[in-house]
Amino acid sequence: MTSPAQALPAVLQKIDADLDQSLERLFDFLRIESISTDPAYKDQCRTAAKFIATDLTGIGFDTSVRPTEGHPVVVGKGGNGNGKTPRVLFYGHYDVQPVDPLELWETPPFAPRIATLPDGRKSIVARGACDDKGQVMTFVEACRAFKAVTGALPLPITLMIEGEEECGSNHLFGFVKDNANELKADLALVCDTSMWDPSTPMVTTSLRGLVYEEVRLTCADRDLHSGLFGGAAQNPLRVLARILAAMHDDNGRVTIPGFYDGVKELPPDIKADLKGLDLTPENFLAEVGLKVPAGEKDRLLIEQIATRPTAEINGMIGGYTGEGAKTVIPGQATAKVSFRLVGVQDPKKIRDAFYAFVRARLPADAKVEFKSFAGAPATELPFDNPALAKTRAALAAEWGKKALTIGEGGSIPIVGDFKRVLGMDTIMVGFALDDDRVHSPNEKYDLTSFHKGTRSWARILAALAG
Amino acid sequence: MTSPAQALPAVLQKIDADLDQSLERLFDFLRIESISTDPAYKDQCRTAAKFIATDLTGIGFDTSVRPTEGHPVVVGKGGNGNGKTPRVLFYGHYDVQPVDPLELWETPPFAPRIATLPDGRKSIVARGACDDKGQVMTFVEACRAFKAVTGALPLPITLMIEGEEECGSNHLFGFVKDNANELKADLALVCDTSMWDPSTPMVTTSLRGLVYEEVRLTCADRDLHSGLFGGAAQNPLRVLARILAAMHDDNGRVTIPGFYDGVKELPPDIKADLKGLDLTPENFLAEVGLKVPAGEKDRLLIEQIATRPTAEINGMIGGYTGEGAKTVIPGQATAKVSFRLVGVQDPKKIRDAFYAFVRARLPADAKVEFKSFAGAPATELPFDNPALAKTRAALAAEWGKKALTIGEGGSIPIVGDFKRVLGMDTIMVGFALDDDRVHSPNEKYDLTSFHKGTRSWARILAALAG
Repeated sequence: MTSPAQALPAVLQKIDADLDQSLERLFDFLRIESISTDPAYKDQCRTAAKFIATDLTGIGFDTSVRPTEGHPVVVGKGGNGNGKTPRVLFYGHYDVQPVDPLELWETPPFAPRIATLPDGRKSIVARGACDDKGQVMTFVEACRAFKAVTGALPLPITLMIEGEEECGSNHLFGFVKDNANELKADLALVCDTSMWDPSTPMVTTSLRGLVYEEVRLTCADRDLHSGLFGGAAQNPLRVLARILAAMHDDNGRVTIPGFYDGVKELPPDIKADLKGLDLTPENFLAEVGLKVPAGEKDRLLIEQIATRPTAEINGMIGGYTGEGAKTVIPGQATAKVSFRLVGVQDPKKIRDAFYAFVRARLPADAKVEFKSFAGAPATELPFDNPALAKTRAALAAEWGKKALTIGEGGSIPIVGDFKRVLGMDTIMVGFALDDDRVHSPNEKYDLTSFHKGTRSWARILAALAG
Repeated sequence: MTSPAQALPAVLQKIDADLDQSLERLFDFLRIESISTDPAYKDQCRTAAKFIATDLTGIGFDTSVRPTEGHPVVVGKGGNGNGKTPRVLFYGHYDVQPVDPLELWETPPFAPRIATLPDGRKSIVARGACDDKGQVMTFVEACRAFKAVTGALPLPITLMIEGEEECGSNHLFGFVKDNANELKADLALVCDTSMWDPSTPMVTTSLRGLVYEEVRLTCADRDLHSGLFGGAAQNPLRVLARILAAMHDDNGRVTIPGFYDGVKELPPDIKADLKGLDLTPENFLAEVGLKVPAGEKDRLLIEQIATRPTAEINGMIGGYTGEGAKTVIPGQATAKVSFRLVGVQDPKKIRDAFYAFVRARLPADAKVEFKSFAGAPATELPFDNPALAKTRAALAAEWGKKALTIGEGGSIPIVGDFKRVLGMDTIMVGFALDDDRVHSPNEKYDLTSFHKGTRSWARILAALAG
C-alpha cells in the first residue's frame, strides 16, 4: 500500500487538475447567506450546514448535521489510520459576518466572482470568501484529492464545522463538552488565520481571548424635546460617552481596575523576535488609511495587535441618527464593547470588572442593562509539540520559504476548549492576507491562497501521517 | 359697525358651536405626513402647504404658496383695519418631527384620534397634534369665527406658515429678508409654546437660540476586524466619546472656551420670581421617569431649562448596531450635537468654538467633517410692550387666572429675525402642556388646549384691535 508521503505528488497533481471544480464548489457554498448573528438568516445557516454535510458525505465521510439551541454543527468522520498515525479534529465555521454597510460592496456580497487586483493577483470576492468558507474548503479539497488518488484519507480525520463562530460560538462549548469522547483526537487543526504576507506562510501559536458585551443605558422613559427638557434631563448618550471615554488613559492603557491581572511581559528573546519582524505602520496600517498605532504608547505595533489585551467600542447608537436635525434628548443609548484577552486573563473577571466600572460611573437617573455575547480566554500552543515542526516543514516545502510562528490578535473561541475539555493542542494554519477585507465590504480570498492552501493541507496531512 | 370687542361674545359662541367641524379640519391636516427633515417626505410637505393655503383662501385670505429652495412658505393676507389698529404677522409651521421610534406609537402617528387620559382629559393624538398643526389651527379657527360672525377680520392679519421649523428654518431667513416690506407689521404673534400647567396660561417672553451641528469622524478607510487591527487602529467611536465627554465638567458646566460669553446673571427680582414658581423635580422630571436635574449643579431647575445655555448630544451612531455581536472597528462615527443659547451668545462664535474644541482633541488618523443645521440667537420681548398687557388680560379672561410671563427653553429660529429684520416684537402664546410628548411617540394636544386656545386667540385679537 502506498504511504501518504509516497502518494503526495499525485495528490498535488490532482489538486491542480481539479482547481476549476473546486472553485465551483466554493462558489456554491459562498452563495448561501449564512449570517449567524441575525436571526433573519436562520434558514440560510441551516442550508449552509446541509451544503457542507452533503459535500463531506460525497467524499466518504460519515456525516451528520447536529442540532443545537442555535445553529447546527456539522460533524464528519473518516479514515482509519494504522493505529500509529495521529487522529486529528479539523475545526472551521460555515457562518459569516453581516454585510453592512451594503452600499460599499462593489458587487452583491453573496454573488461570488473572480476579480483581478491592480498588481495582477486574482481573488475570489464574496462575504465568507476568506472567513471562513474559503479556508474551510482548502482542507476539504485536500481530503477529497487524497481520497480520489489513494482511495482513503491519510489519517483518521473528524471535521467539526460550526455555524456560530461570528457570534461567539455560544452553543459549541456545550456541544464539545457533551460529545467529548466522540470528538477527542490527538491534535486539532484550524484554518481560520492568516499568512505573514502573500509569500510567507505562518503557524499561529496563540490567540487572544474575547469578551463581548452590549451595554444599554436608560434615562427618561421616552425621547424628550431638548427645548423643553434640555439642560435638566439626564442624557444617556452623554453618560455613555463619559463612561466609554474613561476606559482608556491618555497613554492608551485600559483603566478598568484589575484589567491587566494575569498579563505577563514577553520573554526578552521572543520580544526581540517580534522586533525583528519589521511590522511598521507603513506596511500594516497604511493599507487601511492609517498612520499611527493607537494602542498602548509604550508597546510595539506587533504587541498592540497580537500579544496585548485591548478594549474597543465596536458599535454605538442613540437618539436621532437619520438625515437632518432633530432636537431630541434620547431616552436610551447603547454600545457594544469588546475586550481581547491574553495570557491567563479570566473572561468572567474582566466582564465583572467592566460591569463594576460602568456602574460606578452611573449618575442619578441612569439605569444600565448588560447583555453578554462572548467570553473566551486566550490560548497558547507549546513550541515543543512535534506536530508544529512537521507542519512548518510542510508549509516551507509548498511556499519555498520558512514558515513563521506568531501570536495572533483575533479570537477563535472554541480553541481554548480544545485544550481544556478535549486535552489537545491546536495547530492553526491559514492563508488569509492583510488586504482580504475580512468582516468588511468586498471581502476577498486570493486564488493563490485557495489553491496553494489546499496543496499546503495535503502536505501537512501527509507529514502528520508519516 | 360692530367693534371686535362688541362682537366677541358671538364669536366665542360660534367657536363653541363649530368645534366638531374645527376638529375635522385639524384631523385632515394631521393626516398629512409632513416630516420636513427627511427628503423622502418632500411631496407630503407640499401637500400640507397646499392644505393650509386652501383653508386660508376659504376664510377670505389672499393666499399664496411661495417656493423656496426647501419646503414652500404659505402667506395669507387679510383684513383692512381702520388705520389705527395694529397690523399683526402670525407665524406657525406645517412641518412635523420624524416619528421614530415608530414601534412606540400606540396607534399610527398620522391617523389622528381622540383619546381619554386616565384623569378624564380628552386629547388629540397624532404627530403634529400639538407641534405645531394643532396650535396653528387655534389661530386660524379664531380668524374663521370672526369672519363668519362679523364678515371681517378684527385687524389686518398676515399669516406666514413655513415648512422647515423642525429642521432649522434654513430658507425662511432669506424669505423674510427678501419679502420684508410685505411681511412687516406692528407685532408678530406665534402659537408654538406652552401653558404653565393645564389651568394657567402663559406668555413666553424669551426663547433660547439654537446651534445644531453634525460631526463625522473618519479613521480607517473601511470597517476593520478587531481581531486583526484591534489595539493598533484608531477607533472613531472612542475618539468621539472622548471629545463629547469633555464638553461638560463634573459640575455640568460646558467646557468649550468662550461658551458663556454674553451670558448674564438674572436680575435678583426675576430670579426670586423664578424661585417662587415652585418648579421641582417631582412636578417636572418625575413625569418622564427622572428625578435629579442633570444640568449645572449651582442652578435652579427652572434656570437649567429656560435661562441657561446648554450643550446636548442629540444622536450618535457608529460601528455595528444590529442584533448580536460583530467584532468590528468602525471606519466612521457620527454625532449630532446642539447648543441652546441665551442672551447675546453669538451662534457663529459658538459654532466656531465647538469646531475648534473638536479639532484640538483629534488624535492622529482621525479626520473630521462638520455639517450645520441651525444657528439662531436667543430672543427677548421687552416687558413694556403694550401688546403684552393686552394679551395677558385676554388670557386671564378666558382661563380665569392670571397669565404668567416666562422665558422658555426651546428655540423658534425665526423669532430673532422678526426683531432684527422686521423691527417688531413677538408675542408668543401657546397651549401645549408638559405631557404633550412633543417630538416623542404618541404626541397629543388636549381638546381643552385646542378649544380654549381658539377662544383665547379670539379674545387676544379683539383686545389688540381695541
